[in-house]
Amino acid sequence: MVLTDDEEAAIKAAVLGGSADIDVHWILYCGTLVFLMQTGFAMLCAGSIRAKNAQNILLKNLLDACVGAIWFWATGYAFAYGQSGSDKNWFIGNNYFFLSKGYEGGDGYHNWFFQFAFAATAATIVSGAVAERCSMTAYAAYSAFLTGFVYPVVVHWVWSGTGWLSAWKATGNRAAWLNVGVVDFAGCGVVHMVGGAAAGIGAAVLGPRIGRFAGENPGPIKGHSMPLVVLGTFFLWVGWYGFNPGSTLYIGGVSTVASRVAVTTTLAAASGGVANLFIHYKLSQTYDVAEMCNGILAGLVSITSACPVVEPWAAVVIGPIGAVFYTLGAKLLVKLEIDDAVNATPVHYFAGCWGLLAPALFARKEHMREAYGNADVGGLFYTGQGNMLACNFVALIAITIWVGALMTPFFILLKKAGWFRVPENIEIEGLDDSKHGGSAYGIELAAADVRKAAERV
Amino acid sequence: MVLTDDEEAAIKAAVLGGSADIDVHWILYCGTLVFLMQTGFAMLCAGSIRAKNAQNILLKNLLDACVGAIWFWATGYAFAYGQSGSDKNWFIGNNYFFLSKGYEGGDGYHNWFFQFAFAATAATIVSGAVAERCSMTAYAAYSAFLTGFVYPVVVHWVWSGTGWLSAWKATGNRAAWLNVGVVDFAGCGVVHMVGGAAAGIGAAVLGPRIGRFAGENPGPIKGHSMPLVVLGTFFLWVGWYGFNPGSTLYIGGVSTVASRVAVTTTLAAASGGVANLFIHYKLSQTYDVAEMCNGILAGLVSITSACPVVEPWAAVVIGPIGAVFYTLGAKLLVKLEIDDAVNATPVHYFAGCWGLLAPALFARKEHMREAYGNADVGGLFYTGQGNMLACNFVALIAITIWVGALMTPFFILLKKAGWFRVPENIEIEGLDDSKHGGSAYGIELAAADVRKAAERV
Amino acid sequence: MVLTDDEEAAIKAAVLGGSADIDVHWILYCGTLVFLMQTGFAMLCAGSIRAKNAQNILLKNLLDACVGAIWFWATGYAFAYGQSGSDKNWFIGNNYFFLSKGYEGGDGYHNWFFQFAFAATAATIVSGAVAERCSMTAYAAYSAFLTGFVYPVVVHWVWSGTGWLSAWKATGNRAAWLNVGVVDFAGCGVVHMVGGAAAGIGAAVLGPRIGRFAGENPGPIKGHSMPLVVLGTFFLWVGWYGFNPGSTLYIGGVSTVASRVAVTTTLAAASGGVANLFIHYKLSQTYDVAEMCNGILAGLVSITSACPVVEPWAAVVIGPIGAVFYTLGAKLLVKLEIDDAVNATPVHYFAGCWGLLAPALFARKEHMREAYGNADVGGLFYTGQGNMLACNFVALIAITIWVGALMTPFFILLKKAGWFRVPENIEIEGLDDSKHGGSAYGIELAAADVRKAAERV
Repeated sequence: MVLTDDEEAAIKAAVLGGSADIDVHWILYCGTLVFLMQTGFAMLCAGSIRAKNAQNILLKNLLDACVGAIWFWATGYAFAYGQSGSDKNWFIGNNYFFLSKGYEGGDGYHNWFFQFAFAATAATIVSGAVAERCSMTAYAAYSAFLTGFVYPVVVHWVWSGTGWLSAWKATGNRAAWLNVGVVDFAGCGVVHMVGGAAAGIGAAVLGPRIGRFAGENPGPIKGHSMPLVVLGTFFLWVGWYGFNPGSTLYIGGVSTVASRVAVTTTLAAASGGVANLFIHYKLSQTYDVAEMCNGILAGLVSITSACPVVEPWAAVVIGPIGAVFYTLGAKLLVKLEIDDAVNATPVHYFAGCWGLLAPALFARKEHMREAYGNADVGGLFYTGQGNMLACNFVALIAITIWVGALMTPFFILLKKAGWFRVPENIEIEGLDDSKHGGSAYGIELAAADVRKAAERV
Repeated sequence: MVLTDDEEAAIKAAVLGGSADIDVHWILYCGTLVFLMQTGFAMLCAGSIRAKNAQNILLKNLLDACVGAIWFWATGYAFAYGQSGSDKNWFIGNNYFFLSKGYEGGDGYHNWFFQFAFAATAATIVSGAVAERCSMTAYAAYSAFLTGFVYPVVVHWVWSGTGWLSAWKATGNRAAWLNVGVVDFAGCGVVHMVGGAAAGIGAAVLGPRIGRFAGENPGPIKGHSMPLVVLGTFFLWVGWYGFNPGSTLYIGGVSTVASRVAVTTTLAAASGGVANLFIHYKLSQTYDVAEMCNGILAGLVSITSACPVVEPWAAVVIGPIGAVFYTLGAKLLVKLEIDDAVNATPVHYFAGCWGLLAPALFARKEHMREAYGNADVGGLFYTGQGNMLACNFVALIAITIWVGALMTPFFILLKKAGWFRVPENIEIEGLDDSKHGGSAYGIELAAADVRKAAERV
Repeated sequence: MVLTDDEEAAIKAAVLGGSADIDVHWILYCGTLVFLMQTGFAMLCAGSIRAKNAQNILLKNLLDACVGAIWFWATGYAFAYGQSGSDKNWFIGNNYFFLSKGYEGGDGYHNWFFQFAFAATAATIVSGAVAERCSMTAYAAYSAFLTGFVYPVVVHWVWSGTGWLSAWKATGNRAAWLNVGVVDFAGCGVVHMVGGAAAGIGAAVLGPRIGRFAGENPGPIKGHSMPLVVLGTFFLWVGWYGFNPGSTLYIGGVSTVASRVAVTTTLAAASGGVANLFIHYKLSQTYDVAEMCNGILAGLVSITSACPVVEPWAAVVIGPIGAVFYTLGAKLLVKLEIDDAVNATPVHYFAGCWGLLAPALFARKEHMREAYGNADVGGLFYTGQGNMLACNFVALIAITIWVGALMTPFFILLKKAGWFRVPENIEIEGLDDSKHGGSAYGIELAAADVRKAAERV
């Protein structure tokens, strides 16, 4: 007998306490990585568009983080996870508005922090799609609406303990739908499809940029800085190491799951990137850096649901298929003359659709038990069971309808009111000159170099 | 009885050991995030100035990190926290110079790492303020003086167990001043006011850049790369998730505090950013990205003292008031014709002053108990008590006087000796050409593009 | 008696479990930091070369991460650490190809993740050295060969429990060589010398860039963006806080070691940077930012073997000597007309050689016990023992021979086949225009600015 009673009590509190310190540490760490994705989106978007609108897109990305924080504090978390004793329902949460006092003793602030970072991620997916022509006011309104209402409701459906699609009910009193519910671990459906669908709808309602599909020489509009694109992509990849592994929500007892997630996430990103590089080399005879980046992102999105329940080899299959979905989605948008300036919709919506279905095919029962406490259901390819496929497919449809039904009229109203798009002359001149006090880049750079360059011309 | 005696002993060592492993992990993680802020300052400063001085400012930021490490190893930590048995005093530490051997068994190396990152942060605040005209030698001398002496003394006053302003004495044998001491959790006063005051004094003594307040067309001098400014701002925000939550110094038993800190930090940044965007839209009819960034930073600075002891709603109040302090500070500098090239003084000193007073108004007793082990004193608005306001106000004055009394003669001596400022012709030409072997940017960029561009002109 | 049997069991599992959760958390965190170094290399390399090849180098860095992941999954980890019961050998691992099932219960996926990030680091060292003229196909082939075979074998030798150079045998049944084995904690030899030697050989076989050592005005070729260089350097420094401290492989029970590593890493980086700034100021009368960066990196490389076993003061000695090795190495390459576009060979190979010898001089026995469980052997300067120096010197020779014997014919074959180097006209025009669809930077930047700039010329 080594320990005194006081020591035993202290150890019990430290190790078995309701919200153990190590879990909080894990979630604060992972949440910070997810927040780093804001930097990634900002750099990726800025690099992918023309320099004359760089300040504008940077400001939109900053706004996403800020407006997202404020609205997710005000209403978002409440709609997503707010539950009080008897008053639980399958559709929407209704407690903890403005992180009111009762919250702290309940869920713990670290969970708000982690979930906020997710909400801001969902919101910022849109910024690139509507870049170079969307007004600032409209964008701020959209950002508030998505983080404050549209996104949280989907969270409630899939991730709260009472949502109609939740897989977590399986471990509670009420049974999950088809004995499994929707297996969307880190949010192919909840985050990426929501953001990606909103992006596609926004771009469609807003209309293409001048010169993209009409005018003298219509065609793709190149970005202005590939280093920023690659920098952003790497940040997103790094951030995904918080996004996916952190979705365990704890580390105590689930570190094996978090480890597997880090591995499958890595392999899907890598294989998705290589696959997309080859696909687009076949299509264009060019080693296209932007397509390599989007392939990595498509791979990351694709594994986001399945990451804890599949084997590493499956990640190497899932990532490249995600690149195919991405590429087909991008082709479809061009055919429909929807101008998504950074291909956010193909990356997040189309690869997200595939990713949401992937666990239903590749999930192993052993891993389902570890990650979901549910050893009864596995993926179609292992078990022949179609339960998960049915659940996840319903989620795919439901999320698409929900976002479509809310965002389409929202964007159309903005358009009718004349608030959505900047005037044509401003679009041509560039938003930075008229709205943001001039170019994102200083003239002095050119001043010195141009003289020397001019001599060489 | 499940555990053997050996297992009990092992568990005791792991969980209750003097410096538990989880705490070390937490501090190494948070310290690394704080170190990332060096990257943030470097990018923010580089983007905020003209391209012709970009190499110069980058080198100064690299020097801060390096010189700061060396001096904080040599003397800084010793002056801040070095204590030997009976030889403790209220003014300055006097042990552990060069991390001498006794240190390791005492405080633990992770604490040096964390505190070094803070010292380097304090130092680097100045680099932007004196940019585009300060000589490299003078800057290196300043950096050594601040990290080796000026800053550590303030640390000793406020954060060591024996400093005259310390709140931590409340939990020790000797009572803290007014039964509370100075509540400056992560260092509005200790870090930001010290760095910010040094920045303002440096800029004032150095004099404005040519063309800023005199000459043909005096006026604000725009930076050369807004993507770098935004990149730097995001890094600083990310780094603050180490700076503030890590100031718990442990995670074991205080994870609730760290969680609350992450939330209040987020909300103050977000609300400060939005507030400043609107303030400057009102002032200039421009959605000014740099002001959005400075608003976020002012919000972050503002919450740095109060972060563990206030409610989330208070953060949403504190951040925007920080933006107001920032804006008024910036106006004041312009009126005084003090040229702070990146507005470091308004962000760190003026918003820092507000931030130091904020907990004295908004602190909840329950949270004071959790964060400071002191349930007797709360903020004025909750309790009507003025103790904390008195303490923190005295700290505000004391820190300002200390930094002013040391840095003013230091900078004036540098100026008298002719070491502080580069010659006028070099300032006009740009420091990079004469001191750093040419432009920060390669001619080839322009060479290819200029030809095509010239055709379009 | 406070705890029930169930609670005791739960505490035992959580704290003493085979792979404790806190260790997994630590390794996932450190591995993510190491992965961030990919971003660092990408930005550093891109900034260090001409803008006309920026897309090309960015793509190579993306490929490193992706190809490295796929090959380290397929064969790399197996060759490095794959061991089955009786079938262990001193040369190469032979189990766990494609992370086959038995793996998970064994080493744990977090270890694969951490080791993958190291492999990708070793691979990416080469990208800068062969920049601006190496073909994409050749680079992908090299990357696969290094991460899939060359590097893992060295890992097996030095870091596995059975390798012929391993220090870890000291704690097992069979004795380590000379009672100590090779003390290469985080991989001066295993990672940096392998990558650096491959870089030097690649650059030598490939031949210099046009205009570097011959032609009209031969001479150093400047990079195009110093902010990217500094950004990359800072990321590498940050990433090193995962690379070195994470090489404890656990945090439970070794947090003191990890803490010391963070401190020595910091001080070697800082002192290496300052030393190299002064060395090159003496050589060129220029405060050269790129040399400051390379000095920091040389300092970081230099401490990578010795970090857990030396005192902080020794780090301040080791770092600057690393800068001297770097500088001499760089001079040597110029003399041999080997064109390493970013000086990767001097940073990683030459400073790596010094770093591998450093612990043999400066290691303290007390620290050897903590880090290696070996209290019998210390550094030459403390103990007069030459054991470690002999072991580490043999490793230096063995690694150099191994890499040379494999990479030299590999690169020569690529060259003979005509696959290694792009045609001369493409090199002159820039790889981006012909291979990657145009410049990394958008014309619009210049378009607006050039007009205004032209007016000022």
